[in-house]
Amino acid sequence: MNPDVTTELYPAERLARVQEATADYGLRAVLLTPGPDLRYVTGYDAIQMERLTCLVVPASADPFLVVPRLELPAAQASPAGRLGIEMVSWDETDDPFALVAARLPAGAGRVGVADRMWAVMSLRFRDALPGTEQVAAGNVLRQLRMRKSAAEIDALREAGAAIDRVHQVVPRLLRAGRTEREVGRDIAAEILAEGHSVVDFVIVASGPNGSSPHHEVSDRVIRDGDPVVVDIGGTMPSGYCSDETRTYSVGEPPVRFRDYYEVLREAQQAACDAVRPGVTPEAVDAAARDLIAKAGYGEYFIHRTGHGIGLETHEDPYIVEGNTEPLRPGMAFSIEPGIYLPAEHGARIEDIVVCTEDGYERMNLVDRGLHVI
Amino acid sequence: MNPDVTTELYPAERLARVQEATADYGLRAVLLTPGPDLRYVTGYDAIQMERLTCLVVPASADPFLVVPRLELPAAQASPAGRLGIEMVSWDETDDPFALVAARLPAGAGRVGVADRMWAVMSLRFRDALPGTEQVAAGNVLRQLRMRKSAAEIDALREAGAAIDRVHQVVPRLLRAGRTEREVGRDIAAEILAEGHSVVDFVIVASGPNGSSPHHEVSDRVIRDGDPVVVDIGGTMPSGYCSDETRTYSVGEPPVRFRDYYEVLREAQQAACDAVRPGVTPEAVDAAARDLIAKAGYGEYFIHRTGHGIGLETHEDPYIVEGNTEPLRPGMAFSIEPGIYLPAEHGARIEDIVVCTEDGYERMNLVDRGLHVI
Repeated sequence: MNPDVTTELYPAERLARVQEATADYGLRAVLLTPGPDLRYVTGYDAIQMERLTCLVVPASADPFLVVPRLELPAAQASPAGRLGIEMVSWDETDDPFALVAARLPAGAGRVGVADRMWAVMSLRFRDALPGTEQVAAGNVLRQLRMRKSAAEIDALREAGAAIDRVHQVVPRLLRAGRTEREVGRDIAAEILAEGHSVVDFVIVASGPNGSSPHHEVSDRVIRDGDPVVVDIGGTMPSGYCSDETRTYSVGEPPVRFRDYYEVLREAQQAACDAVRPGVTPEAVDAAARDLIAKAGYGEYFIHRTGHGIGLETHEDPYIVEGNTEPLRPGMAFSIEPGIYLPAEHGARIEDIVVCTEDGYERMNLVDRGLHVI
Repeated sequence: MNPDVTTELYPAERLARVQEATADYGLRAVLLTPGPDLRYVTGYDAIQMERLTCLVVPASADPFLVVPRLELPAAQASPAGRLGIEMVSWDETDDPFALVAARLPAGAGRVGVADRMWAVMSLRFRDALPGTEQVAAGNVLRQLRMRKSAAEIDALREAGAAIDRVHQVVPRLLRAGRTEREVGRDIAAEILAEGHSVVDFVIVASGPNGSSPHHEVSDRVIRDGDPVVVDIGGTMPSGYCSDETRTYSVGEPPVRFRDYYEVLREAQQAACDAVRPGVTPEAVDAAARDLIAKAGYGEYFIHRTGHGIGLETHEDPYIVEGNTEPLRPGMAFSIEPGIYLPAEHGARIEDIVVCTEDGYERMNLVDRGLHVI
């Protein structure tokens, strides 16, 4: 990553914001092991492993980063090296949990642990900090992480353009006689070739497999007349993720499929049109769901309408019934209604959108009509 | 995976063994979310995500698998489908933690949670099961997972042969004028081409970068006379991991490097020769360390001698001072001493070995002499 981009995407002042939020939430400290929370706060893309790396952000003392001695050069060279925080290294036979406990400001009270911290580590912290209750650090971080900065939206736009380019070549890869797995392998290579550093998932769900929303790939041979759901995504060098679904048809699809595909397209548009500040996620979900139900396909839309996206493919806010926390500018999430006819076929259309001051912006721009190949 | 291989690698009777171990350990149940523990017990390679998937193994009632409705077809089609266990699906607006709590046999007592369960989930279970203490399920599973079956050793042998083939092409990729990153990209492609399904890590540490054991790749241009540490690994379709280090030299290396490389080679051999049932991991560590110390390089061997390997690249047993639990036949681990001269260069030699009835078997067979290119 270009150092200027890193500085904009992971600004040094974020650490102070997290410290304020830790105090506001009434926590003694948050403990962040490698994963999206640590990367969000410091820019450090550390590897999760059995040796403890942990950023400690006390509510009212200086933050510090505990790292295995082996990882110290990498930590210093990472964006975390710019933050001017103390790095405390430990050796192979030390107990790093005791080390954190000893350095935490005295007192009882609650601590936040990174949402994705391995339980084997949170349990070690529980034992090292008797009388301290753990809560999910996501409670502290989610208000910050949900509202993307301009630099983060740029990163999502870049990710969206990269996955758009992959969808543009999908029609050349999909054809009768090839297996889903073969097509999937080619798509994975394109995901990397178009600028992602990691392939996160590749779904190529042809014919009846399209009726299972989370089918991945199989050895099924694609046949003429098959609808094919292609849902793909990866992580960019920035750390930000892409996720886009288009539905294709290899040759002329069944008549009923054409019918509900048009319903789905209108539903996806209706949900997007519902997005603006102050609207609840459940209202966005309902905008798609009501339209699909009215057309008689309600029982075949068996999942929520979307999920937030950023440093994780799935994060807050979830676009689901029951989520009544109003949308705000900068929130980024998928809009991906689907219709799945058991044992027959299915369709899904998915774009990432960002809530703007007065509506929404799509990160994905590939045509949403049925792509008949 | 061929279904016969799956059945041998993930035998159905393993679930009963885990249930016995759960009872022996005095736990009410173990709760296994997606990850290596779940895969070990069922063969199900589920994706870790925010929607709860959880195998519940009570000490004295039938096991069941809780899955999001969306994942039910994938779970049924996975090797877990052979086990004849109940699959309990939940819908988008259900609370799956409450669902698990309601179905657990009554009573207080401790439960085991998968070592890699996300803390955000273990905290939800804590709240859903008041009065129940959590412990790491690894305590229950480690005795089983540490001792590999014949099928698991076959899988490790297959992984070892695949990464051996990659090291055999490394000399063609490494040359003066190329950056570490360029070489690393080519190696990653070879890791996939030789049969791995995932690239887990690629370290190409040239010249002074070789003195940092966990350096990955950089834009440093490799120069004539550079020693280069190449430590690479991936995961095979079986789920089992490879991990192998060889040290190369692009042109003639510094004289001092040649000197300590020979010490290192003897140390790696000495540690391998120490492996047999009944010997402690710390004695294996000492076999390498003492020899390196005697040659005057003790302060430059700054990490443990090795780590267990299987469904995780790093797992029990760790070959480290303080680990006195004797080796047993079927235990698989790396032997990877290193010597690192700060700001100058470094070297590491790593093989995966399996403890046999009377000694050890190496999974990696590429020549361990210095490869001068």
